Amino acid sequence: MLFFTQCFGAVLDLIHLRFQHYKAKRVFSAAGQLVCVVNPTHSLKYAPTRCAAAQASTEQGTLPPCHHHEVVHDSQLVPCTCPLFSCPWEGHLEVVVSHLRQTHRINILQGAEIVFLATDMHLPAPTDWIIMHSCLGHQFLLVLRKQEKYEGHPQFFATMMLIGTPTQANNFTYRLELNRNQRRLKWEATPRSILECVDSVISDGDCLVLNTSLAQLFSDNGSLAIGIAITTSKVHSSEAEM
Amino acid sequence: MLFFTQCFGAVLDLIHLRFQHYKAKRVFSAAGQLVCVVNPTHSLKYAPTRCAAAQASTEQGTLPPCHHHEVVHDSQLVPCTCPLFSCPWEGHLEVVVSHLRQTHRINILQGAEIVFLATDMHLPAPTDWIIMHSCLGHQFLLVLRKQEKYEGHPQFFATMMLIGTPTQANNFTYRLELNRNQRRLKWEATPRSILECVDSVISDGDCLVLNTSLAQLFSDNGSLAIGIAITTSKVHSSEAEM
Repeated sequence: MLFFTQCFGAVLDLIHLRFQHYKAKRVFSAAGQLVCVVNPTHSLKYAPTRCAAAQASTEQGTLPPCHHHEVVHDSQLVPCTCPLFSCPWEGHLEVVVSHLRQTHRINILQGAEIVFLATDMHLPAPTDWIIMHSCLGHQFLLVLRKQEKYEGHPQFFATMMLIGTPTQANNFTYRLELNRNQRRLKWEATPRSILECVDSVISDGDCLVLNTSLAQLFSDNGSLAIGIAITTSKVHSSEAEM
Repeated sequence: MLFFTQCFGAVLDLIHLRFQHYKAKRVFSAAGQLVCVVNPTHSLKYAPTRCAAAQASTEQGTLPPCHHHEVVHDSQLVPCTCPLFSCPWEGHLEVVVSHLRQTHRINILQGAEIVFLATDMHLPAPTDWIIMHSCLGHQFLLVLRKQEKYEGHPQFFATMMLIGTPTQANNFTYRLELNRNQRRLKWEATPRSILECVDSVISDGDCLVLNTSLAQLFSDNGSLAIGIAITTSKVHSSEAEM
């Protein structure tokens, strides 16, 4: 009996996901765009994080990997960069992706342009929506975070990090695009390296920032669709284009 | 002697404006774009405004022009819509532009694409930067406002209003674009009608919103350049384009 109940639950979940997938497809109608439904994870770490600890030790004169940007080489160990967990894991940059997939069950998607469909936007802060994106021979981590910078006023912050060094990150440009209700918001920037802390990128506000009312305008039935595109940008030409 | 001092001051001002103009031109290099330097005005009204008064009278059962959207005809009188002042003026929609120019000294610029260069972004909130934009046979009002929605955390809000009815406003799309420091932020939406209150558009957050750190990243020496473009949009096609 329990088995049948579980099966029925799973079928309902599949129908729900399929429905959300079609909704996103309707909005992002460009052919060939992958739509990935991303469920929220209530953020488990808001204890002093590895980055905060690293920052403290920097102030004491030692240089931890987290703030050791340009000097980090692939041969060095990096800490677990998953923004969700205070995880004790350390490893080489090359194995960060498999660690994030296997230990933290973060999905990875292929393709130059994908649609990130974050569900259950109404959940209370702090909440994270995370996915990895494989593109142009590199892997990127997209983080959408709901956080209360000002008490009682949750905001949404979205950024993209390269799972690589800051020098490698400088070769790319990422674009996040929201499009609904006769409004369009586009954010374009150079991705940060995963060796920098996602927490500090978000607390600096150097990312796509949405207040709750704008997030609602761009949401459809509690889900927010973000179009993502990554391009190479050896010479960043955007400042001359406008 | 006083005359010479004033002349010297005026020449210095001109040189300063010219310098800012060239800086903006360097960033917004597309040929033919007008650059308009807009100086801030410390917001004089934060007493109960005409809109708030209008809202109160709506609640009491009468319909003031400010919230009387689709029913307003050109033949009706509209109150002064300048967001800076609690001005007792009332007049027809057709003469709002000349009232704003003559009484409130708001500049008007011609051209489909212009650059709005707001100076002295560091000034404390509340501060407004305002200009009129004549384009496609209509006049628009661009308002950039620095305001503290959360105490101690000023934010910048930018929106465009049509000096016309909401039905006329639905025929247009406006785009605001910031582009500097390898970052680009674009906001596209249908302009609101001047018959709606700019205060309520901003308090709803249904506009381009910048926190202080992002505004600093996009500023150059205390000035923020915003590229503005207006297009007609009989059928709003942006949702199908992405």
